[in-house]
Order: sequence, then C-alpha cells, then structure tokens
Amino acid sequence: MDRSPQRVAQADRPEALGTVYLVGAGPGAPDLLTVRAANILARADIVFHDALVHEDTLALAPNARKVAVGKRCGRHSTAQRFIDKQLVDAARRHRVVVRLKGGDPMLFGRAQEEISALETAGVPYDIVPGVTAALAAAAEIGTSLTQRGSVRSFAFVTPRTGAGEDPSRWVDAMRGADAGAIYMGAREAPAIAAALIVAGHAEATPVAIVEGASLPGSRVYYTTIGGLEQAAERASTAPTLLLVGPQFRARAGMQREEDEGVPDLLARTGS
Amino acid sequence: MDRSPQRVAQADRPEALGTVYLVGAGPGAPDLLTVRAANILARADIVFHDALVHEDTLALAPNARKVAVGKRCGRHSTAQRFIDKQLVDAARRHRVVVRLKGGDPMLFGRAQEEISALETAGVPYDIVPGVTAALAAAAEIGTSLTQRGSVRSFAFVTPRTGAGEDPSRWVDAMRGADAGAIYMGAREAPAIAAALIVAGHAEATPVAIVEGASLPGSRVYYTTIGGLEQAAERASTAPTLLLVGPQFRARAGMQREEDEGVPDLLARTGS
Repeated sequence: MDRSPQRVAQADRPEALGTVYLVGAGPGAPDLLTVRAANILARADIVFHDALVHEDTLALAPNARKVAVGKRCGRHSTAQRFIDKQLVDAARRHRVVVRLKGGDPMLFGRAQEEISALETAGVPYDIVPGVTAALAAAAEIGTSLTQRGSVRSFAFVTPRTGAGEDPSRWVDAMRGADAGAIYMGAREAPAIAAALIVAGHAEATPVAIVEGASLPGSRVYYTTIGGLEQAAERASTAPTLLLVGPQFRARAGMQREEDEGVPDLLARTGS
Repeated sequence: MDRSPQRVAQADRPEALGTVYLVGAGPGAPDLLTVRAANILARADIVFHDALVHEDTLALAPNARKVAVGKRCGRHSTAQRFIDKQLVDAARRHRVVVRLKGGDPMLFGRAQEEISALETAGVPYDIVPGVTAALAAAAEIGTSLTQRGSVRSFAFVTPRTGAGEDPSRWVDAMRGADAGAIYMGAREAPAIAAALIVAGHAEATPVAIVEGASLPGSRVYYTTIGGLEQAAERASTAPTLLLVGPQFRARAGMQREEDEGVPDLLARTGS
C-alpha cells in the first residue's frame, strides 16, 4: 500500500492521531469482505458503519464501539460533513478507526469527501477495497458482466443526481456501453425505463433485477426495459441493482435454488 | 447463494461429481481476497489459477494440486476450451475444484465460457466474487472512481477485441461515461490516446496509470490523454490499468510513500 500509516506515524504526524481505515464491507454476506478488512475490524477501536452493513460483519470488530452513520442508498447528504468531522475527531481519541461502507468505498461510496477531510486535518488513512454489489449480483445469477465477443464494456451508473447536475448523464453512459448496472435506482424504475427508451435502447433489452445479492432471501427477477416498471412494483425495500444488457436473461441451464440460507460465517471460516 | 452445490448433491447429481468454484483472487495482494475465497481454497483439492495469481494466495490452498492456466491479460483464447474441459474432468475426480482468477471472475474474466461448459456437463458450481483491479487502483491513489456532483457514471472497458468485433465500441463507452478504467490496454497506449481524442476527449483529460495495484512495487504515473503515449513508455510489464477522468490528477494532500512493501499476510491475519 502506498499510504503507510505506520511510517507516517514514525515520521511527522502528531503522536496522538490514530489511523482511519475506509473499508469496503462487500455486498452483504459477511464472508464476502476481504481478509484484510476482517483483520482491521478485529483490532478496531471504533467503527462508523453504513446502516445496511450486516450485523455479523460488525461482530468481526468485537472490541469496537459501533456508530451507525449514513443512510440507505446514499440519501441525506446533509449528514456527510458531520460524518467527516466524526472521523477526524475519532482519530484524536482512538488508534484504529474504521469507516465501514457497503460494497466498495470508491464506487458510489462518497469516500472522496471523507478523504479530503482526513487529508485537510492531517489524519493518516488507508483504504481497503471491497466487492461491489454488481459483481456479487453477477455471481448470484451466474451471468458475467462482460461477455467475450459481445459485451466488452460495462457502465456503473446511478440515476441519483444532486441540485444543478445534468440528470441525463447516466443515460449517456448506459448508451455508450455494451451493458451496465444501475445502482440506487430501483424506486425510480418507471423514469429509468422511459429514459433508456428515449436514449435508443430497445424495449426488449433484458434486465435482471437483483435484490439483496449475496444475502439470504436474495431475489432475482428477469424482465426487459419495457417490462421494468411492472417488475419493479414487486421489488422489496432491499438494496436492489438493475443489470441491463443482452446477457441478462434467464438461462435454461442455471441450477438455481430459491430460499437458500447463507451459510454460517463461523462454519465457513472454520474458526 | 442461489446455486447450492450441497443441495444439488443431495438431490439429483451423480455422486461422483465435485463442485467447481469460480473464485476471484482479487487485485493481487493475498489479503485482498475474500474470507469466503480463503475458506474455499483451504479445502481445495485442485486449483486452476491464472498465471498472475500471487504465490502467497496459492499457499492458502496447502492440500491442492496447483495448475497454472490462462495467460497474462487474457490472451491466447485457444486455450479456453481446454481449460473448460479440464474443469469438467477435475470435477469427476475431486470434491473441491477451484478456478482462481485474478480480480473478479465476472468482469473481463471469461467466466461465462467456463460456466456454460459446467452447466452443459451438469457439474455443480458456485461463484465467489472478488475485488476488481480498478477498485484496488482507486484505493491505491486515494481517488474515488465516482465523485459526488461530477462523476456519476464509470465505464469499465478493454480495447482488446476479437475477430469480427467492432474495435471502436470501447471508445463509445468511455465517451458516454463521466470517467472510466481501461483494462488490458497499457501496451496499446498510443492507439488508445488517439481513439479517445478522435472521440472528443480533451487532450488535457487526466489519466492515472496504475501498475500492480495493491502489490509491492506498485507504481502510479499521472499524465493526460495527450501525454499518454510518452508516459506509457515508462510502464513495466506489470498488470496496468489506465484510469481516465477529471478526478485522476495528483493531489497535494496525498500522503504517498513510495516503495513500501506489502505487509506480510500471516502477520496481518494474526494466524
């Protein structure tokens, strides 16, 4: 790793400052976070976590105070500056501070704002990447995001936009790529379908709606852009990803089993 | 998980067949694979691995025979059908068969061809996602792939194309998205720069060239599309990613330390 808290600590940072780790918790299942993330959680003094992080993941930090921050789907941006401040303050009181984010910190994770706050305050930090939701969804349905010979580019987008932003930019990304994943968009399915069709996507383009990828009770619905509005009405409040592209149709050969529970983490780790 | 090898085993699959796990090894550092991947490797009988998988990662499978398959950067497609056959054959002789792929299996990993072969042969399989290289590169340079208010879509592309494919499709994806990562393209930097400029990208668009993200000796070069050809001449033969977008410029606040070795895996895991 490039940013070395240890070496910075020995050199010129104030003795009292701890290190803040921005850690990807992965897509949901507790054993789909990285070995490095698990090791950092094991020695964490305090963990600021997204609301959706699994309780068994939090249990990997037995000695840490747990502070729930952030809201589902990245809403409530007013809280971000307060989170930034909490991280800096925590580094003054604790040795190992973890900011635990669903998926990966660097993709729709608002990590840059926290990094900027830490850099401004001179707080050492490190970033531990994670498995982002679309990769877990692809694993869940057994369908690769890229396909040799046909899908050679893949877009990660969100239709969520802030004030003053161009609300149609995500459509350009979906149009330019051979296929794509739409994060944080399930509740806006009708508008998404309309925008994709206006941009030139065929109504028959396959869509896989994947709810709670990697978690027990995960669900997959196969539809098309034209059928997206109707299909989305069945969707629950679980984190949902829309996968759009020619490969996202149900295949006859898939050996899917519904309602399979996630294996016990401890049983899997053998510890 | 949806595809349940255990339940399939109890039901209707032939007793003799093992399970094939398509496992993401992550970006390179051995502790950046998932806990689930480590647990599966620990009980693997045979591991078919990409040439670039770290030897310490392979050491997580102490009881497995290791078979190097696949080539750097996904070249030599003639070998894929032979790999497919090897996986099916291995499932007839072993209980736990692992196909270990760099990064994530479902993004530029050719997983679909292996999945199809396994489904056709009736071999139970499961897929374990991994951290893809671009996420590790973003962590390495402390720069988020998405940026609130400015970069809301991100393209993953490769300029590698097979016979009969449209060689310009990847450019469309890069043009449509606010920023993007180019996999397996470092050696074609001059052609990439030219194609991006023709497609309308400004020559001044920042580019971060990240070599060997997460590994000891990783390197980062900051340049622009216009300077890409010259910068790429300095690049080594390590796996290299090009990150293109407004956010990929060096920042004054970054606490980078060069030539920092990767921490010892065992020290980190505490085992």
